[in-house]
Amino acid sequence: VFEVKWDVESAEKGGYEHFMLKEIHEQPNAIKDTLRGRIVNDGEIVLDKVKITKDEIDKIEKIFIVACGTAYHAGVVGKYAIEKFARIPVEVDIASEFRYREPIINERTLTIVVSQSGETADTIAALKEAKKHNSRVIAITNVVGSSISREADDVIYTWAGPEIAVASTKAYTTQLVALYLIALDLALKKGTIEKEYAKQICDELKKLPEKAERILNYKDELQEFASNHFNTKDVFYLGRGLDYAVAMEGSLKLKEISYIHSEAYAAGELKHGTLALIENGTLVIALATQEHLFEKMLSNIREVTTRGGYVLAFAMEGNKQLEGIVEKVIYLPKTMEEVAPIITVIPLQLLAYYMAVEKGCDVDKPRNLAKSVTVE
Amino acid sequence: VFEVKWDVESAEKGGYEHFMLKEIHEQPNAIKDTLRGRIVNDGEIVLDKVKITKDEIDKIEKIFIVACGTAYHAGVVGKYAIEKFARIPVEVDIASEFRYREPIINERTLTIVVSQSGETADTIAALKEAKKHNSRVIAITNVVGSSISREADDVIYTWAGPEIAVASTKAYTTQLVALYLIALDLALKKGTIEKEYAKQICDELKKLPEKAERILNYKDELQEFASNHFNTKDVFYLGRGLDYAVAMEGSLKLKEISYIHSEAYAAGELKHGTLALIENGTLVIALATQEHLFEKMLSNIREVTTRGGYVLAFAMEGNKQLEGIVEKVIYLPKTMEEVAPIITVIPLQLLAYYMAVEKGCDVDKPRNLAKSVTVE
Repeated sequence: VFEVKWDVESAEKGGYEHFMLKEIHEQPNAIKDTLRGRIVNDGEIVLDKVKITKDEIDKIEKIFIVACGTAYHAGVVGKYAIEKFARIPVEVDIASEFRYREPIINERTLTIVVSQSGETADTIAALKEAKKHNSRVIAITNVVGSSISREADDVIYTWAGPEIAVASTKAYTTQLVALYLIALDLALKKGTIEKEYAKQICDELKKLPEKAERILNYKDELQEFASNHFNTKDVFYLGRGLDYAVAMEGSLKLKEISYIHSEAYAAGELKHGTLALIENGTLVIALATQEHLFEKMLSNIREVTTRGGYVLAFAMEGNKQLEGIVEKVIYLPKTMEEVAPIITVIPLQLLAYYMAVEKGCDVDKPRNLAKSVTVE
Repeated sequence: VFEVKWDVESAEKGGYEHFMLKEIHEQPNAIKDTLRGRIVNDGEIVLDKVKITKDEIDKIEKIFIVACGTAYHAGVVGKYAIEKFARIPVEVDIASEFRYREPIINERTLTIVVSQSGETADTIAALKEAKKHNSRVIAITNVVGSSISREADDVIYTWAGPEIAVASTKAYTTQLVALYLIALDLALKKGTIEKEYAKQICDELKKLPEKAERILNYKDELQEFASNHFNTKDVFYLGRGLDYAVAMEGSLKLKEISYIHSEAYAAGELKHGTLALIENGTLVIALATQEHLFEKMLSNIREVTTRGGYVLAFAMEGNKQLEGIVEKVIYLPKTMEEVAPIITVIPLQLLAYYMAVEKGCDVDKPRNLAKSVTVE
């Protein structure tokens, strides 16, 4: 049995100015720990506490992923991964909405609940609602013995270690890892994914800690960017597909710690309204890591630059097409686009962090927010 | 055969300062026209151009509603209505996302596409993607002979008449009517709704034009509110359930014509991030028309007022519980909560309109936006 023990020392700042910055830096190890022992024989998935069998999986017609806040954003990525690999329809829902809307759920539904603390009130209520309708429930949580880990049928622990900062970082990236592992497990058991392709994804997942480490080196560049832009009042995060999912999380990070009004948009929706808000100098963060969507994203970026928007773009190393079109491009280590969110989010966390620091905000304890929302 | 003819005269402003204001005022008649002839014998639904049979409906396992912008927001309401009445799972997707993400779709899927013009490029592409995978397609559109009306298997026309203002108003309310009619039609054919309950909903739908008319009388009050608040930089729209769906549309209206950065939030998600943005005087529009969610909504409203947020609430006539808690309450004519969105949106349209007018914006032709997005 693999165990990670939490101790007082690991809950200290270890030389970092804030817990959040420390936790951002812990992500390479947190990803490694969450993967450890779970990928074997070059592409098989072992999840100790997930006992669902092939027969049971074959009966599943629909999956709900239910969560709040950052964990909900992880769920949006999870939907892409599960639908792509396992071809089971997935609906991601906000726990506070799910529990009151008579969701269509039964014994052929699998429900995945995600909560760092495992104590989020609405998520626990959603879990109970799912079980009441005979849905099997898998919990993804960071806390051993937490309420959702006890009440669920299956559990995957994210081995992120204690997360102290209110704004979640390493919990999110490890929730993504857990969701990719579930997606692969379901797909391999169902036989909806080629073994060779599953092996490629697994190999790529194992390379992510090292890539995450490299991204941490961008911090000076991001700090400098933040020092020039922290006074901005509004920020828009744009992306398509998986980049849109990451945009949501990047936007939430900025919002919760810097109090800048940021908003994420599916880039294709810009023309249906939000483009009216883009004026000279409006800061737009454009995510362009998805190769198969790159041309479409490029045309959305041009819509913004044409109106004078100031664009900071994130693209994959080797793709130089945004040079000269946007104000600044930050290149991510080349990664299979299917799993890119796990590393794409890291510079967005750093950006939010430095914007908040430059503004003089209380980064680890943003106003009005609590770490775990254990009341409704 | 019932026909509504468009003529040059009806495309003129008819004494109103802007097309948008005229079109807001046309909603009672547009709702009436869209209902006309479609509810017969006290609760049966007749949709001439929707030929799907009971046998075909019984085979449907999943419905996609695919659209962009305002029509997408109508789809969010449609999901609630169809799932509630017909108990068929519905996924609402943004057309520009749907078409590129290999959606799980087949001959047991029904796809509903929604577009005022019927020429929205991404929506047409989504329709084609759906048909390629043997999904039957129902189009909801305002334009007879438009591309989606020609390519779909079934059509429901919204008889809203020509909509000239870029910001959609009467198209949205009539799209909602069309979606409720589809939801009832599916439910009655499937036998998932009690006849008596269907009749109640139908009776209520028929009363909405008169209630919409009454809401138009609030315009002085909303104009006055706008004259005091048009300088606000950020607005948050909150709601739960169907109120959240309407919040999305209310927020988009304000954003596209007044250029104020507004954002809609599921009220239960506030504590997971956005609450950090609420400070003294922040304008929050709270929708509280859903009786079964009222207590939960009230506690979210208190979260906002506790932080000094300035709340304008919309509640149902007869519910006085928000008096003294929020700055201002506007009461909607008492309506069955299931169909409330059709009228709840109207004061939000008026609010957006007067905010934009007070700011001196070009209401009918907001910067950067086109009426129909016929390019990708």
